[in-house]
Amino acid sequence: MTAATRILLLAHGSSDRRWCETFEALAAPTLRSLPEARVAYMELATPSLEDEVGKAAAEGITHVQVVPLFLAAGRHLRKDVPAMLDDYRQRHGINITLLPPIGEDPRLGDALKEIVQSSLEQSHDG
Amino acid sequence: MTAATRILLLAHGSSDRRWCETFEALAAPTLRSLPEARVAYMELATPSLEDEVGKAAAEGITHVQVVPLFLAAGRHLRKDVPAMLDDYRQRHGINITLLPPIGEDPRLGDALKEIVQSSLEQSHDG
Repeated sequence: MTAATRILLLAHGSSDRRWCETFEALAAPTLRSLPEARVAYMELATPSLEDEVGKAAAEGITHVQVVPLFLAAGRHLRKDVPAMLDDYRQRHGINITLLPPIGEDPRLGDALKEIVQSSLEQSHDG
Repeated sequence: MTAATRILLLAHGSSDRRWCETFEALAAPTLRSLPEARVAYMELATPSLEDEVGKAAAEGITHVQVVPLFLAAGRHLRKDVPAMLDDYRQRHGINITLLPPIGEDPRLGDALKEIVQSSLEQSHDG
């Protein structure tokens, strides 16, 4: 059965391989649990968002959900990415939804609180 | 009693007020539970990292932990911020620790998996 939806975890991208590796590690639990998920980069790294949308279309996927691995929406998410997605929708006849950046989700704020609390406990132990 | 440690949640900063508001919302659960935590910006917004380190020193705080609200370490976290912190250490005689960017913590990857799973469930319901 072909999954009807493809999830693209969109990172900005960088020519620094270590930067991309951090995003791959961040995405790993999602990729392990959701076979329909992939990482894609906006620029400077591969696979590109364009490549991954094209692949989804070629596989007969009808819906793509783009999840921005960004903490907040700046110019890229307000202007550049929507323009790119308009182009891909027209070229591939595919339904694409751009979700809010992950930093807007309250679960990220809760995770941050836990990270800071445990770093503080470690420093008090040390 | 003066807290011995100050936590600075370091965001990049932007001239776009909406961008900063996302970081303030992300930081809110941490600020509510840890009175020693503050938000500080590297550039383009206030309060600046420099201001917040200066305030901590003036309050007699001896240790500052800087928690980067960045998903991965690029040039800013590898070069610019360490150089800024070296300067502040010398000027204020204060102990400053730069922690890894929050995106390197496995709890963020787990939160991402939950966010994507629920967005997928919502799209299947819709």
